[in-house]
Amino acid sequence: MGEFDLIKRFFTRETEAQPGVPVGIGDDCAVIAATPGMQWLVSTDMLVEGRHFLSTVAPERLGHKALAVNLSDLAACGARPRAFTLALSMPRVDEQFLAGFARGLFALADAHGIALVGGDTTAGPLNICITVMGEAPAGTALLRSGGQAGDDLYVSGTLGDARLALEVFRGTAVLASGEDFELARRAMECPTPRVALGQALRGIAHSAIDVSDGLLGDLGHVLKRSNLGATLLADTLPRSALLARQPLALQRLCTLAGGDDYELVFSAPATARAAVQAAAAASGTPVTLIGRLEAEPGLRVLDGQGQVLPQTPAAFDHFKS
Amino acid sequence: MGEFDLIKRFFTRETEAQPGVPVGIGDDCAVIAATPGMQWLVSTDMLVEGRHFLSTVAPERLGHKALAVNLSDLAACGARPRAFTLALSMPRVDEQFLAGFARGLFALADAHGIALVGGDTTAGPLNICITVMGEAPAGTALLRSGGQAGDDLYVSGTLGDARLALEVFRGTAVLASGEDFELARRAMECPTPRVALGQALRGIAHSAIDVSDGLLGDLGHVLKRSNLGATLLADTLPRSALLARQPLALQRLCTLAGGDDYELVFSAPATARAAVQAAAAASGTPVTLIGRLEAEPGLRVLDGQGQVLPQTPAAFDHFKS
Repeated sequence: MGEFDLIKRFFTRETEAQPGVPVGIGDDCAVIAATPGMQWLVSTDMLVEGRHFLSTVAPERLGHKALAVNLSDLAACGARPRAFTLALSMPRVDEQFLAGFARGLFALADAHGIALVGGDTTAGPLNICITVMGEAPAGTALLRSGGQAGDDLYVSGTLGDARLALEVFRGTAVLASGEDFELARRAMECPTPRVALGQALRGIAHSAIDVSDGLLGDLGHVLKRSNLGATLLADTLPRSALLARQPLALQRLCTLAGGDDYELVFSAPATARAAVQAAAAASGTPVTLIGRLEAEPGLRVLDGQGQVLPQTPAAFDHFKS
Repeated sequence: MGEFDLIKRFFTRETEAQPGVPVGIGDDCAVIAATPGMQWLVSTDMLVEGRHFLSTVAPERLGHKALAVNLSDLAACGARPRAFTLALSMPRVDEQFLAGFARGLFALADAHGIALVGGDTTAGPLNICITVMGEAPAGTALLRSGGQAGDDLYVSGTLGDARLALEVFRGTAVLASGEDFELARRAMECPTPRVALGQALRGIAHSAIDVSDGLLGDLGHVLKRSNLGATLLADTLPRSALLARQPLALQRLCTLAGGDDYELVFSAPATARAAVQAAAAASGTPVTLIGRLEAEPGLRVLDGQGQVLPQTPAAFDHFKS
């Protein structure tokens, strides 16, 4: 099967033209209609086998995750997803892999009403690069730099299950049952991008970021860009019942330095507590108050007794760990 | 050097904020201002070592080419380039490579006033994925599907030097001197995207495509999408003085099935000949009349005596050749 047949078979859909996309796959460029008053938001993520996913992952989950991690970036900025491109390098044409990958990819795309508008396929080591485009009313994008001293700090959903799965794969943690492992593995392989929450927080949150490299590291980006410090209450960090059954040190590692959580960490003024909870309810996404932004530089992580935790796990770095 | 240091050192620029890009590198998404009345055009290309470039290519040229092939897609649609993202997978942090790559990349970006607005870097086999975004007035994008029977067919610049270099690398062609080889190699490694010509042809050309997989194959896409046939005059295909000195069979192979030319093939009504020449002159890009679109299906390639050439080289396919 050649490149063009492959694109046609797996990535060109029989459905009618997508609304707002006058020209989709099949020309030199896609053409996307702009909505008056909106700015464009763009993000790109590249996934490499053995680095971002294991060779054992189900193709359907990989298709889901490749798009999910990109949608999570749009969510963190409060953007409405519009379109995405997919570039795929594969050692050979594996039809079973491609069918599963496309199924997972399009299921998530359809859930968000977002169109695959272009791409590229080539022979080479397995590599998946997706670029997403979205839009938000001019000047309303949530940014890392918008934090203000005194802001409440929140996180969506729960943290740490993806890291827990990674520790099991690494052999440094053991879970009580296969069901427990499947729960953790599902968190790692099938993250939920918080797209509705991000949009609901526009005009309410001062700053936001998605947790892809671990809470401490990602929050650090907000602090640096906002020129602030923070206090984080380690024991308030939301975690699944599964993670809550693990040893405390493992819970702390997973919640503080998890990575692959794809939850939103955001800050909002204390006067907006009701608005934050309304946004959470409207988007069907739980949020938890986990600390506060402060003028004093540095990140202070406190335990339940108000004691500063002596050491904090480092953020994940693709060229370091 | 970690991922964040690497991005900061090589891909974050000291210059002031780019106009029209309120948020560039450093947040979850870039934010790009939209121009009222414009549609968005998007394209993505992935380059893999050994497939799209040789390991011996100078990093500066690779940086140039990775962006050039993407700009060429915008050119083929008549779009004005606005912004691009870069995702880069590398086996290790090679500072000399990165410095050269960034130099070539930004030199071309600056020449077109286009901003690098985001990206991703990761460890893995060498892989470069760029996504470009541009804009054009609503409804004016040049498409493969717009060809009309009776249209003149044109190509910009010259064809075949890149393929000539490939044949030398493959050992199937020998050039008279090292200078000749450098000329051909430069065509392969440093293509010029015809961005100004593409924009000048809006409202004049009926259809356009860029030649990335070889003239015959790419023209075939136009014929299929426009539901037309064509006659092509093989001996009129523009070629460099270097290629014109090679055996006729090699000239035909290189001009008809070159690939990596990144010239524009476009069609325009015969009544627009003066307008086409004016667009070529205004953009400083030579164009040559090479044939005609016809209602009769199929592609007829004629030699100087009007005889149909018996066989035509196949288009390049990344999963076939």
